[in-house]
Amino acid sequence: MAERLDPWGSGKIEDYENLFKEFGIESFEKFRNKLSENRYIRRRITFGHRDFAKIMNSIENKKPFAMMTGLMPSGKFHFGHKMVADQIVFYQKLGAEIFLCSADLEAYLVRGIPLETARETTIEEYLTNYLALGLKEKNLNFWFQSDYKVPYYRLRDMLSRKVTFNELSGIYGELTTGKIFSTMTQAADILHPQLKEFGGPRPVVVPVGVDQDPHLRLTRDLATRFQNEFKFITPASTYHKFMEGLQGGKMSSSDPNSYIALTEKPEDARKKIMSAKTGGRATIAEQKGKGGIPEECTVYDFFLYHLVDDDKELEKIYGDCKAGKQVCGECKKICADMVMKFLEEHQKKREKVGEIAKNILGK
Amino acid sequence: MAERLDPWGSGKIEDYENLFKEFGIESFEKFRNKLSENRYIRRRITFGHRDFAKIMNSIENKKPFAMMTGLMPSGKFHFGHKMVADQIVFYQKLGAEIFLCSADLEAYLVRGIPLETARETTIEEYLTNYLALGLKEKNLNFWFQSDYKVPYYRLRDMLSRKVTFNELSGIYGELTTGKIFSTMTQAADILHPQLKEFGGPRPVVVPVGVDQDPHLRLTRDLATRFQNEFKFITPASTYHKFMEGLQGGKMSSSDPNSYIALTEKPEDARKKIMSAKTGGRATIAEQKGKGGIPEECTVYDFFLYHLVDDDKELEKIYGDCKAGKQVCGECKKICADMVMKFLEEHQKKREKVGEIAKNILGK
Repeated sequence: MAERLDPWGSGKIEDYENLFKEFGIESFEKFRNKLSENRYIRRRITFGHRDFAKIMNSIENKKPFAMMTGLMPSGKFHFGHKMVADQIVFYQKLGAEIFLCSADLEAYLVRGIPLETARETTIEEYLTNYLALGLKEKNLNFWFQSDYKVPYYRLRDMLSRKVTFNELSGIYGELTTGKIFSTMTQAADILHPQLKEFGGPRPVVVPVGVDQDPHLRLTRDLATRFQNEFKFITPASTYHKFMEGLQGGKMSSSDPNSYIALTEKPEDARKKIMSAKTGGRATIAEQKGKGGIPEECTVYDFFLYHLVDDDKELEKIYGDCKAGKQVCGECKKICADMVMKFLEEHQKKREKVGEIAKNILGK
Repeated sequence: MAERLDPWGSGKIEDYENLFKEFGIESFEKFRNKLSENRYIRRRITFGHRDFAKIMNSIENKKPFAMMTGLMPSGKFHFGHKMVADQIVFYQKLGAEIFLCSADLEAYLVRGIPLETARETTIEEYLTNYLALGLKEKNLNFWFQSDYKVPYYRLRDMLSRKVTFNELSGIYGELTTGKIFSTMTQAADILHPQLKEFGGPRPVVVPVGVDQDPHLRLTRDLATRFQNEFKFITPASTYHKFMEGLQGGKMSSSDPNSYIALTEKPEDARKKIMSAKTGGRATIAEQKGKGGIPEECTVYDFFLYHLVDDDKELEKIYGDCKAGKQVCGECKKICADMVMKFLEEHQKKREKVGEIAKNILGK
């Protein structure tokens, strides 16, 4: 029960126990202290990994490593995406070469989004926000799946030789021809940084949600199957939790009430926070008696993931809620003010980085 | 029955009648006189087409058009392949831009041939022989499926969105992931010359055997399905017969007794001709009485397809055989001498074009 009092949500780790047991994902605990400057790691939002020891070794010994992640260029960039952006910036500061992909081909093949639209979304919503959040041009490889270098396509084609239908349908459900092209492209996204044309074999880490793990496992298998041809080092992965949507349920680009975009008007953001689902009780009397439930509160998640970096400060918010000292209305106001301040500052930064975004694409 | 006396094998056209009826392939007759300088067309070896009127129109009005064909880089380049090479040279002389593809990716995905091996075979067996047979560098686009330009890969990926499994398995039988990549690559091979990056929409002709027609039909359908995106003109096709293998059955790169390679030692070629299957009768007496059957003779096919360009001369060979005036042993000697002479001259030409082959790859 002590775990459930942990202000950074480690209580929920219990839910992930069977991931460790059944799927072989390992706990991130042993790396937590070494990388505790990262808020997501410190607060166990990043809770699991595969093969991360290779990455830790590279970090500690200042050896080359890479971090790969992709973005789906549909809809608005919101606070859920910010968590991934922060991780990119974190690994870049640690010395990783960053491989950052716009999954425009997947957007086209699986969701029917025209490539041109995906390109605009990539620049306006993703790249500009990444830069405003601290991404640097140095040590950054950015690409569109539809517009990259030939060895990448060649690798993808070669990978297709050693993947069976059963594997793909086991992971991705009902397949279409386009979906097969998309899934194999994702495998090339992860593995190509180790081609000689892109820097050669070295540890690569891919931070994902648990839902992406089957894909990671396939790609790790593929790395082994092409051992002779490419000397791939099996890619590492980390697993993070997700923020819940503002109304409960999933935070999703397709439901504007579930998220706050980083380009949102501060006043609109305030309204969304004020009507968000909390971990409050049915009555104020009950809340004062029993205390709130921050573990089930989407407003608390904003403090936990983004707004409060100081652990003491977070502990106070958490403790006051649990003790029934703070009611939801007041708490929402504090959160809304912080979100508005963040957005105002962030949106100023966005204005400064537009040119850099163009530079990156022009490379 | 008159048809069966035709020395250029049109008798066999009867076998193709149902192709015309069932599949909508049209007879090539109406273009035959206009293009009679081409031996294969004149002799009805090229017997059918789809949409060739567009190509005829381009030829007659000196408008831009292209010819696309591919090579499978496995094994030796033999007289069966020469027929395709001659057609490339023919269309090139008529003003077509030539799109010539080494299907190295297909060789890898479907037959497990390493890309490096396929590359060597392409140069040594195919490109060098093409050049020795008259292919020019001008108006020639040569590519490896595994090593081409990005818009080609992008087109292939986009095509995959509008193809169903059922279509693919209907055409190609049992599918693997690799085979799907390979088949979609073939569609991009045919359609990409019409991308703006490769010259834009214009008529393209693809000469194939009838076995390739389902693939052509799929690609023609795809051209229509992407009408909005690319303004493709539906590609045209022509259909040719094949030379039989020297022992009967299929002429195949995997059976050296079935073919004569263009790099074959002339003396070895002589031996193959001398032991080839003919249309001769069981006894000389019977042959003198009933006459031979050139339509079933692999030696006669060498005269018909390759060695005798003069129709009068071919008619005499045909007539003498039918009349029982010529027995097979004598006829084989004549053929063997002609093949040996051809190979000696061809192999001298090969020596001169090695540098040009490298130039083409260097482009």
